[in-house]
Amino acid sequence: MHFASDNWAGAHPKIAEGLHKHAGGFASAYGTGALDKVIEQTFNEIFEREVAVFFVATGTAANSLAQASVAKPGGVTFAHREAHTIADEGGAPEYLTGGARLHPVDGSLGCIEIDNLRKAIAGYNNVRAGQPMAVSITQLTESGTLYELSDIAAVSAVCRENGLPLHMDGARFANALVSLGCSPADMTWRQGVDILSFGGTKNGCWCAEALVFMDPARAASFPFIRQRAAQLFSKSRFIAAQFEAYFAGDLWLDLARHSNAMAKRLAGHIVASSKVRLGWEPRGNEVFAIMDKPTAARLRESGALFYDQNPPHSERHLIGENETLVRLVTSFATSPEEIDRFGDLIA
Amino acid sequence: MHFASDNWAGAHPKIAEGLHKHAGGFASAYGTGALDKVIEQTFNEIFEREVAVFFVATGTAANSLAQASVAKPGGVTFAHREAHTIADEGGAPEYLTGGARLHPVDGSLGCIEIDNLRKAIAGYNNVRAGQPMAVSITQLTESGTLYELSDIAAVSAVCRENGLPLHMDGARFANALVSLGCSPADMTWRQGVDILSFGGTKNGCWCAEALVFMDPARAASFPFIRQRAAQLFSKSRFIAAQFEAYFAGDLWLDLARHSNAMAKRLAGHIVASSKVRLGWEPRGNEVFAIMDKPTAARLRESGALFYDQNPPHSERHLIGENETLVRLVTSFATSPEEIDRFGDLIA
Amino acid sequence: MHFASDNWAGAHPKIAEGLHKHAGGFASAYGTGALDKVIEQTFNEIFEREVAVFFVATGTAANSLAQASVAKPGGVTFAHREAHTIADEGGAPEYLTGGARLHPVDGSLGCIEIDNLRKAIAGYNNVRAGQPMAVSITQLTESGTLYELSDIAAVSAVCRENGLPLHMDGARFANALVSLGCSPADMTWRQGVDILSFGGTKNGCWCAEALVFMDPARAASFPFIRQRAAQLFSKSRFIAAQFEAYFAGDLWLDLARHSNAMAKRLAGHIVASSKVRLGWEPRGNEVFAIMDKPTAARLRESGALFYDQNPPHSERHLIGENETLVRLVTSFATSPEEIDRFGDLIA
Amino acid sequence: MHFASDNWAGAHPKIAEGLHKHAGGFASAYGTGALDKVIEQTFNEIFEREVAVFFVATGTAANSLAQASVAKPGGVTFAHREAHTIADEGGAPEYLTGGARLHPVDGSLGCIEIDNLRKAIAGYNNVRAGQPMAVSITQLTESGTLYELSDIAAVSAVCRENGLPLHMDGARFANALVSLGCSPADMTWRQGVDILSFGGTKNGCWCAEALVFMDPARAASFPFIRQRAAQLFSKSRFIAAQFEAYFAGDLWLDLARHSNAMAKRLAGHIVASSKVRLGWEPRGNEVFAIMDKPTAARLRESGALFYDQNPPHSERHLIGENETLVRLVTSFATSPEEIDRFGDLIA
Repeated sequence: MHFASDNWAGAHPKIAEGLHKHAGGFASAYGTGALDKVIEQTFNEIFEREVAVFFVATGTAANSLAQASVAKPGGVTFAHREAHTIADEGGAPEYLTGGARLHPVDGSLGCIEIDNLRKAIAGYNNVRAGQPMAVSITQLTESGTLYELSDIAAVSAVCRENGLPLHMDGARFANALVSLGCSPADMTWRQGVDILSFGGTKNGCWCAEALVFMDPARAASFPFIRQRAAQLFSKSRFIAAQFEAYFAGDLWLDLARHSNAMAKRLAGHIVASSKVRLGWEPRGNEVFAIMDKPTAARLRESGALFYDQNPPHSERHLIGENETLVRLVTSFATSPEEIDRFGDLIA
Repeated sequence: MHFASDNWAGAHPKIAEGLHKHAGGFASAYGTGALDKVIEQTFNEIFEREVAVFFVATGTAANSLAQASVAKPGGVTFAHREAHTIADEGGAPEYLTGGARLHPVDGSLGCIEIDNLRKAIAGYNNVRAGQPMAVSITQLTESGTLYELSDIAAVSAVCRENGLPLHMDGARFANALVSLGCSPADMTWRQGVDILSFGGTKNGCWCAEALVFMDPARAASFPFIRQRAAQLFSKSRFIAAQFEAYFAGDLWLDLARHSNAMAKRLAGHIVASSKVRLGWEPRGNEVFAIMDKPTAARLRESGALFYDQNPPHSERHLIGENETLVRLVTSFATSPEEIDRFGDLIA
Repeated sequence: MHFASDNWAGAHPKIAEGLHKHAGGFASAYGTGALDKVIEQTFNEIFEREVAVFFVATGTAANSLAQASVAKPGGVTFAHREAHTIADEGGAPEYLTGGARLHPVDGSLGCIEIDNLRKAIAGYNNVRAGQPMAVSITQLTESGTLYELSDIAAVSAVCRENGLPLHMDGARFANALVSLGCSPADMTWRQGVDILSFGGTKNGCWCAEALVFMDPARAASFPFIRQRAAQLFSKSRFIAAQFEAYFAGDLWLDLARHSNAMAKRLAGHIVASSKVRLGWEPRGNEVFAIMDKPTAARLRESGALFYDQNPPHSERHLIGENETLVRLVTSFATSPEEIDRFGDLIA
Repeated sequence: MHFASDNWAGAHPKIAEGLHKHAGGFASAYGTGALDKVIEQTFNEIFEREVAVFFVATGTAANSLAQASVAKPGGVTFAHREAHTIADEGGAPEYLTGGARLHPVDGSLGCIEIDNLRKAIAGYNNVRAGQPMAVSITQLTESGTLYELSDIAAVSAVCRENGLPLHMDGARFANALVSLGCSPADMTWRQGVDILSFGGTKNGCWCAEALVFMDPARAASFPFIRQRAAQLFSKSRFIAAQFEAYFAGDLWLDLARHSNAMAKRLAGHIVASSKVRLGWEPRGNEVFAIMDKPTAARLRESGALFYDQNPPHSERHLIGENETLVRLVTSFATSPEEIDRFGDLIA
């Protein structure tokens, strides 16, 4: 019962095979090979426009270098208080932007609240405070919830008012996409997203992260930014090969649908349980549940792996004194049997 | 006839298989899994002491973060003028150290000349110039030559005199090792090397680079440095799995012996040729040859892939007016047939 | 009626004369002259121990370089939410530390609340969050209040528990000192302060800011840090000359006593007023007053200069709907007549 | 006999008085006061166009922030090998640009040689090497020589070819100006200079350095750059007051003429001497002389203060085995008597 994180799984068999298939032969290095070019074209098709795509090593690199690409002196990025780029990247964005500040914006369940965003931005734009440089949202959010398309559009409207680029951290992009049932274009540039961290790792790849600039003109100096950050792979096709398998026959969407379905199944067990209750409705592959601490301990003893979670700022009131909030993450590798075994334990 | 670079090859079949084998199952993320721990132990055995090992995404990351780990305000790294960290990393060391300077030191054929190093260091250590922070050598050098063990010891003696750590860029560590016929411990800490960029990518891996601190105490804050640089892989075992196969049965040494042997065979053809001559004796898997430009063009038309090379500063006099210096790199994937076909072309 | 800020005044006549007196003659540059040495000795006497003193150009430089001197990878400084180093330095600390984060800590009226500090620190010390590197307090606070000596000791106890240096932003050090009636040693190292931004500019100098390391061993590489930050004056004695006059005959304490007395007199008028009320009791030379907006407008029309102030987070409830909080700052140059004229206007 | 440096002198009496005169009264802070505005207008008049002027604390700050204002990822500044920004700023440009590289260009006697500059630039513009971002020249050069107007135009032509801004380090701008007998506009933007470090400190001010953008549009984000670098003075008028006196009645040109004349007088003594000879013809206020070491020792014993100088790369052949090159700097405060006393000693 592996619910610790979707990055505890390895690689999906088709991706492992895809990679294996490309092991032989020679290809020019540093992202200039034929397969790299093919994958770039695939991204164009997926996003229904010409985009600029750059592979990087980690999601943290994608998020941080997205910000580096729009950095300004005294620059400030606005993101949700619980955003990965604020809470989990060890200062990488501050470091790789040469000292930008990340301003936390509050909002319910992982989503930036528009009025808070407006107020936060209004506090800057003078030399003593610094100047706004970007807004970053996470889709799927860190609370396993979603921005509806209209929510993204509302954030991007504030960006336009303030002349700011909108970045989306898509570490769980596919999970959000199949949950909304829309197209990649709909979830990004059609709502005003300018730069996307496109994550494949959590959805079945070994290591496949890309930064996607919806307008290639924005990416003019990004090759220098990536190299300077030591994020340019020599045998770049080992990323391209993973993406090839990932996209082939819409594997990526199938994997996301599977992990979302597993989360829904898990949520069903929780709703039916008398010992555990849902924190809030899951929209992707992360389920947040509230239980008393002895129950959590007993589940772990029975072999379930999961982490306690600091309750989001906005939801602290939900958790009782002797209770804990836990995060249960499903993945492409989660089986219905695992879920049902967990269901039996909480029945 | 693929002689452009050793990073044009893909992954060796055994490494591809090793990776494939570990695709299934769950493992804790961010370098904390069982296989990561096994590989750390393997490094201890290979280096005959307890070392601290950190996987990173690229050789440039290893070199730059090695410097970041010993950075000082106004700090200066001394390296050979043609060193990769000076000439080919797009400013990554300057950036990832927060502004260190790389001071080029001259010396014949890729090796730092001791007197030049002493003089260069002596020019610093005051606030107007900055303070020395590290010396970096490359083994195999960028000219395909070697530091003998006594040469390394001589550089490290200067380091000790000045209280400086010695870094070795080992992008082609294995090629140097089998060429010298010594042990990893002999080529590193026994001669005073403190930090090693250990490269597996150029010798048959997809992407397997590690930073090795000979004294783990030096690495106390490196986990923060790596995370801050966005170089911590979540599914870290995909690197560990490559290293597992790389070290199993001394595959890594066999691959390096093969590529060195191919280089020697190639050098033999060149020595026998009337149209092409050796720039200098190759010591690993890189052969530098001098030929007139029409010959170079003809070889390329015949299907040989190789790059022109700016002559090392110290060897400019070797190249005639209408001539060019070319670099021919062999790898684990180079076949004797390729070499001999090239030999026929220059016969 | 100049209450906008204490940095709107010029230089006190004795300081202007002191500077004038040293215009002639030659002195070795870059802080190595005889007068620089004299002033360093004066600092030792004032602090009753051997300290290391470095002149810098601005208070922002002092605060930022204090942090740079204790920077760590992924480092985090904890300071009050309204601290100058967080709210008013345009990202200088983030920039000059190479990307540190400033974590705002809440507390009433400009003073860090101990429990909040402990909780904030506890959230770090792992690679995903970063590592604590310093705590910074402001004395006089941005709200014109004070840390009692025991309050400083309580903050420094948390610092010791966590192995963190304690920095004090003393832009209004003298105002706090005479208000508490203690010695510089009492207000700093005897309570555990390690590094002090010692400000003279707001208390009658043109430009005289110094960073004081209570333990000179901590400052070993600071000369490089200062030079690298372009903060080393060539004709350094123009700072030393100001400090000479500043300290002579305890001028600095007299000036601070005067501006504090002026603030007290102003507060008296406010307490007596029916149109304006005190926000809270002033402890130094900053008075915070609440009035309705028409009154504020009328006062400005009558020639009073002052700024509206965002209410401190902890005190928002004090300000009514149509009211404003204003900051009234007195200085060495404030006259009782000005104060009384203002008093008449609000009577 | 003070020939160590022009920054060993204090402030010229008129500048000291000018500063003194402005000590009283109140003025709005941070460069927004009336006197700041007057001086900005004076700069416009001096340069015969609308320029953007920013005061900073040191010449190193001016040079470094000029580069920061045009920084690019992986950026490289080209300057003469002996340029202050390369040799004497302790890594400030690297640090304050977030990791730019300074590429040394050779050329005779402090002046960049055009062919060398072209070759150096040509080596960049790819991700492995980095991208050119600026060219910087020093006028007066570090060798006390000059770029003729046509020389500046030749450098700027290379800049235009490569789309690079041209920066001039004018730490001794006035000395060069009166030596050439041209206008500030002629020596800067009319020859293609884009950004100027305008130094007053070495020519009679206490501390008066400014960065001048010939095109104000280039300076749009400089207020944020300066604040972020902690270089914004609160009582900014103490700089403005110095500049007011500096420019009044062309004092600055008179002071420069005086120090240049003193240098010429000194050179005359040297030419007449049998014990000392000129290194090369001085063009401003720095004289480089060659003498044997016992002579240098004897002069110092007799009370002459001066530094030995590493011979410029291009002029090493001039200095004999037992000889030394010394730098003799005159200033506004140098008297003919001092010069003649030195003349007597070497006669």
